[in-house]
Amino acid sequence: MIKVGIIGATGYAGAELTRILLSHPDVEIVSLVSKSYAGERFSEIYGNLYSVWDEECSAEELGDLSVKCDVVFTATPQGFLSSRLDDEILSQTKIIDLSADYRISDVSVYEQWYGLKHGSPGLIDKAVYGLCEIHRDKIIASDLIANPGCYTTCSILTLYPLAKDGLIDNSTIIIDAKSGVSGAGRGAKVSNLFCEVNESCKAYGVASHRHTPEIEEQLSLAAGEQIVLNFTPHLIPMNRGILVSAYANILDGVTPEMIADSYSKYYGEEHFIRLLGPGVCPETRWVRGSNFVDIGWVFDERTNRIIAMGALDNLIKGAAGQAVQNMNIIFGLEEAAGLEMLPVF
Amino acid sequence: MIKVGIIGATGYAGAELTRILLSHPDVEIVSLVSKSYAGERFSEIYGNLYSVWDEECSAEELGDLSVKCDVVFTATPQGFLSSRLDDEILSQTKIIDLSADYRISDVSVYEQWYGLKHGSPGLIDKAVYGLCEIHRDKIIASDLIANPGCYTTCSILTLYPLAKDGLIDNSTIIIDAKSGVSGAGRGAKVSNLFCEVNESCKAYGVASHRHTPEIEEQLSLAAGEQIVLNFTPHLIPMNRGILVSAYANILDGVTPEMIADSYSKYYGEEHFIRLLGPGVCPETRWVRGSNFVDIGWVFDERTNRIIAMGALDNLIKGAAGQAVQNMNIIFGLEEAAGLEMLPVF
Amino acid sequence: MIKVGIIGATGYAGAELTRILLSHPDVEIVSLVSKSYAGERFSEIYGNLYSVWDEECSAEELGDLSVKCDVVFTATPQGFLSSRLDDEILSQTKIIDLSADYRISDVSVYEQWYGLKHGSPGLIDKAVYGLCEIHRDKIIASDLIANPGCYTTCSILTLYPLAKDGLIDNSTIIIDAKSGVSGAGRGAKVSNLFCEVNESCKAYGVASHRHTPEIEEQLSLAAGEQIVLNFTPHLIPMNRGILVSAYANILDGVTPEMIADSYSKYYGEEHFIRLLGPGVCPETRWVRGSNFVDIGWVFDERTNRIIAMGALDNLIKGAAGQAVQNMNIIFGLEEAAGLEMLPVF
Amino acid sequence: MIKVGIIGATGYAGAELTRILLSHPDVEIVSLVSKSYAGERFSEIYGNLYSVWDEECSAEELGDLSVKCDVVFTATPQGFLSSRLDDEILSQTKIIDLSADYRISDVSVYEQWYGLKHGSPGLIDKAVYGLCEIHRDKIIASDLIANPGCYTTCSILTLYPLAKDGLIDNSTIIIDAKSGVSGAGRGAKVSNLFCEVNESCKAYGVASHRHTPEIEEQLSLAAGEQIVLNFTPHLIPMNRGILVSAYANILDGVTPEMIADSYSKYYGEEHFIRLLGPGVCPETRWVRGSNFVDIGWVFDERTNRIIAMGALDNLIKGAAGQAVQNMNIIFGLEEAAGLEMLPVF
Repeated sequence: MIKVGIIGATGYAGAELTRILLSHPDVEIVSLVSKSYAGERFSEIYGNLYSVWDEECSAEELGDLSVKCDVVFTATPQGFLSSRLDDEILSQTKIIDLSADYRISDVSVYEQWYGLKHGSPGLIDKAVYGLCEIHRDKIIASDLIANPGCYTTCSILTLYPLAKDGLIDNSTIIIDAKSGVSGAGRGAKVSNLFCEVNESCKAYGVASHRHTPEIEEQLSLAAGEQIVLNFTPHLIPMNRGILVSAYANILDGVTPEMIADSYSKYYGEEHFIRLLGPGVCPETRWVRGSNFVDIGWVFDERTNRIIAMGALDNLIKGAAGQAVQNMNIIFGLEEAAGLEMLPVF
Repeated sequence: MIKVGIIGATGYAGAELTRILLSHPDVEIVSLVSKSYAGERFSEIYGNLYSVWDEECSAEELGDLSVKCDVVFTATPQGFLSSRLDDEILSQTKIIDLSADYRISDVSVYEQWYGLKHGSPGLIDKAVYGLCEIHRDKIIASDLIANPGCYTTCSILTLYPLAKDGLIDNSTIIIDAKSGVSGAGRGAKVSNLFCEVNESCKAYGVASHRHTPEIEEQLSLAAGEQIVLNFTPHLIPMNRGILVSAYANILDGVTPEMIADSYSKYYGEEHFIRLLGPGVCPETRWVRGSNFVDIGWVFDERTNRIIAMGALDNLIKGAAGQAVQNMNIIFGLEEAAGLEMLPVF
Repeated sequence: MIKVGIIGATGYAGAELTRILLSHPDVEIVSLVSKSYAGERFSEIYGNLYSVWDEECSAEELGDLSVKCDVVFTATPQGFLSSRLDDEILSQTKIIDLSADYRISDVSVYEQWYGLKHGSPGLIDKAVYGLCEIHRDKIIASDLIANPGCYTTCSILTLYPLAKDGLIDNSTIIIDAKSGVSGAGRGAKVSNLFCEVNESCKAYGVASHRHTPEIEEQLSLAAGEQIVLNFTPHLIPMNRGILVSAYANILDGVTPEMIADSYSKYYGEEHFIRLLGPGVCPETRWVRGSNFVDIGWVFDERTNRIIAMGALDNLIKGAAGQAVQNMNIIFGLEEAAGLEMLPVF
Repeated sequence: MIKVGIIGATGYAGAELTRILLSHPDVEIVSLVSKSYAGERFSEIYGNLYSVWDEECSAEELGDLSVKCDVVFTATPQGFLSSRLDDEILSQTKIIDLSADYRISDVSVYEQWYGLKHGSPGLIDKAVYGLCEIHRDKIIASDLIANPGCYTTCSILTLYPLAKDGLIDNSTIIIDAKSGVSGAGRGAKVSNLFCEVNESCKAYGVASHRHTPEIEEQLSLAAGEQIVLNFTPHLIPMNRGILVSAYANILDGVTPEMIADSYSKYYGEEHFIRLLGPGVCPETRWVRGSNFVDIGWVFDERTNRIIAMGALDNLIKGAAGQAVQNMNIIFGLEEAAGLEMLPVF
């Protein structure tokens, strides 16, 4: 059994991670750390786990966990891990970080978009960007995984084949994303109260959302050229789900078949990516509660653009599920172990 | 008192029209026609009007209404009005049509996108496109108003100043729209059941939605050149509201000030358009229940694009409210008469 | 014009009061006081009033307002008004209090259920319980109105005729109530976050909710005997609306006609109470956005019980609308002045 | 592997059954029958099972399935099974019926409440009421299971210990229930459209809902005396979940400890019933997606009543999950086999 600890277990991503790991056949939970709820039973905060996991949350430090866990998940605010991690800890345990601290290779870009001083820039090179379907080969050998953001996973996977195969004009990429409210976290903010969010829809972080450089870096890597794009997130009155509608001009000579072939080439064998095919629009309800990403697209001959669409559950493939998928890869388990739950309609 | 009749009074737009007109100081409702509910009390179908309007719905024909009404609103399926309207009726009454029958000047474009034979192409020239803030001068003298669609009103108003003043590259326009479910009408379809829509988000009609040619025609008119664009509607789990996020490349030399000045020039004096200014994102909750359109924008220097955003209540400014606004203009009333209700948060 | 001030204007009830009063033909708003947002524009907090009321919130005290306002509404936490009010203030202005401070005649009952020391028990006798349809005669002559709670208004109005006319066994009354989330206020609490409330339903405050003694006192007054009852509130994932389902054993010899006659006797002429009649179930959507209360009932011969049901908008008839109705009565205006807005479906 | 067929697989309960059985380690799905969608791929109707179950729905008859299935689940309209079932079919396969056809022992009561002629009254005696925690001993030996209704399961389990141990006055039982919309089925009705249900709450079927006699029969059986009670269902704007708040007068001498002991006695060892204890209110979100029933209660000394509350997922413990639990019992599997999924918050 793999011994795991979670720091930040009572946030939405941490709690989802806890739920998934409790059903994982190869995992033993050693410690759930919560700064806000230390000393309280986990099941008093998340009643869904009443009678399932009634242990108290602890206030242990990363160092404590590193000596008794095979892997530590950090579902913590930006800056938490980077200010605590060092080589000694990394020599003792694997780290899968759900924050942004090690996602961006250029520390100055991180510091600019996040407005934070990075606490351990020297470790960034050791981190592997944990987008499983793209970086599986590097993940397997890594001690430090930068688990991708929710918007990011959906955006990159939706566009990756097109960028990788050079089918689109990379200077024309526009990503319009819609997210459920759990993506905003469990902080007690007026703006996330039921009455403020329900029956409304808005964009936010326009031209300034922190997931932008992460998307740009990964797509640039795929395309082999520097990509600058627009990413616009919107808040939707639902608990879970991210939908991405991405637009790009199709390059001359690119046919609908080439688009379809490209998606098949990269994703045809992927268990967690379901290609809906041309003309089919993904819906977040069909992936909810699962680790699936659904992808469809429309080739618009009128405007010579492709509209590529992806949907995932932001707490699972967009956070906790992908983190477990990364763990499975690192520990040589079946990649889908503990992640076979079907979408709950 | 202006004598009004409504055909199609028990659809969502028709019912909203009824509600608004019942509070209009200068209007007397003469007849509410409903094919589906003829003979039933209106307030049994829409309980909000219990004790307010308990009259029965009628099954009268357009001809019947034209002789006893000063104005007839048709909130009917596409093809209904065009197959019944003629010069005699137009000589007897004013018509404000909430369907698409007379919105598009080129009948072949209409027939292609709607898959319908137009019943009275000779009358299309007599119709004025009832986007009040743009075509007020023509509306005042018209007998036949083609009341714009909900997506269309929001999309055109959001982009109009930019197209009119030549500030953007018109070949790069992408409109990503999000709509509440009332826009889909009151038909008993599985796809609009609560459980199918709630907790989900999807695009639909991608590259093929019927509001596209209407948006293109109006923006082309403004720009003085033929515009082809992408319009992608999304379904959002809320009753009312449309949010448009529109993207376009900014032309060389265009400054943030020029953008702001352009919006002010066209909308600064408009009662129902609220300019939120640069950097502010409209939210559908702030316009719900009112005839307002809220518009904000972001000038993205990184990508050299503008993201222009508009929000309205699809049943009011996107349908019934604008229809009343058109009526007010035609009959020489205060343009805001009966439309002063504040947004209900 | 009546000069009004609102203390606590940025809570949900205060903001609704502001919205209603801005459309009231006989009212001038003199000051909006908000402790949390003093110095900020009201329309930055409530974007629905952008361009309508862009004044700043003030930090004025009750005493300041009392000298420049004809009436002061206090939409403040329990204990606020009772610790500040005195005879001098009451000699200068009318007070309509939306808190519970003066609703309960027995100060010891107030102190027990609210866990607060009452700051001005000597003034309780001067207060009139502002349930307009029941206490209109006393309201007209009062300087201090204890505006009823939202659950309370709905519960009392639903059962009042039955208690007043002695048609039910008062020892068997059970009130099961369902409320939208705005009733919980705008405080930044985790329990009211969108993701915590959406897609769920729960009871709370079972056998201990503070509105219980208020309901008991008023129904006891009507019945002429001491009533002890069960009141169970439930939280429902919607913004607005209260639905009450009340149960009681019917006394021997009471017929369905007697029940119907009783409701007609007390409410037949009431503008804001809509009697749906026997067998019709009220729905909160049909009253939303209005000052109406809808009441229906079922006479169950199998169990010899009546199930009486009432629905209202908790922010309007359950708070701000009733407060304005009280103001109208006090100042000799049409009781429905400024309150004629139809329900928004 | 147990060979199973489902008739009515594309309704909400049938689809949930399909989803659960696809993850059940001991089950092989042989046929999914759907009258409405015969010939269409199941995953085109329920996109959550895309790539998981892409087989077509069939139009097979009950007789066809009975020869090739070890067990047939019927998630069909009332009257379907009773008009087709006979001894021959029952000799060939086990039947687990999710309709009401065999739930009520007195055929005249069934025919009165359902307004249907029962097609096979002679078989009613062979059916066992499949409320697993109560009738486990009989279920194990049965060929025909009448799987309880969703409201019924929640209502009976919430009150069973109190009735069984004679702790309450059975003439005072009132059950006020709240249900998500999936309980209303997938029929294309205007009343279940998103816009009709969202942001509203209503009672329906007051004093006449068909689940009433089923609840009364089972509680009467437990109590050993004839019980007549009030059952009032309400529609809540959420997809899944039932919450029951049940009221009854406590008999003289009954203490809080006796209540708690009674619940522990009957449910203390039950895997799927989670006793939250006195003073704790169940919430539907904590059971969603699982086969759990959460039960809590409040002993109100002021009114001498108990308020007992239960919550479950109407599609799982209230339908498909319980059906699988019944199958597990009949076939001698672990009772929780295939049902261990944790609630999805």
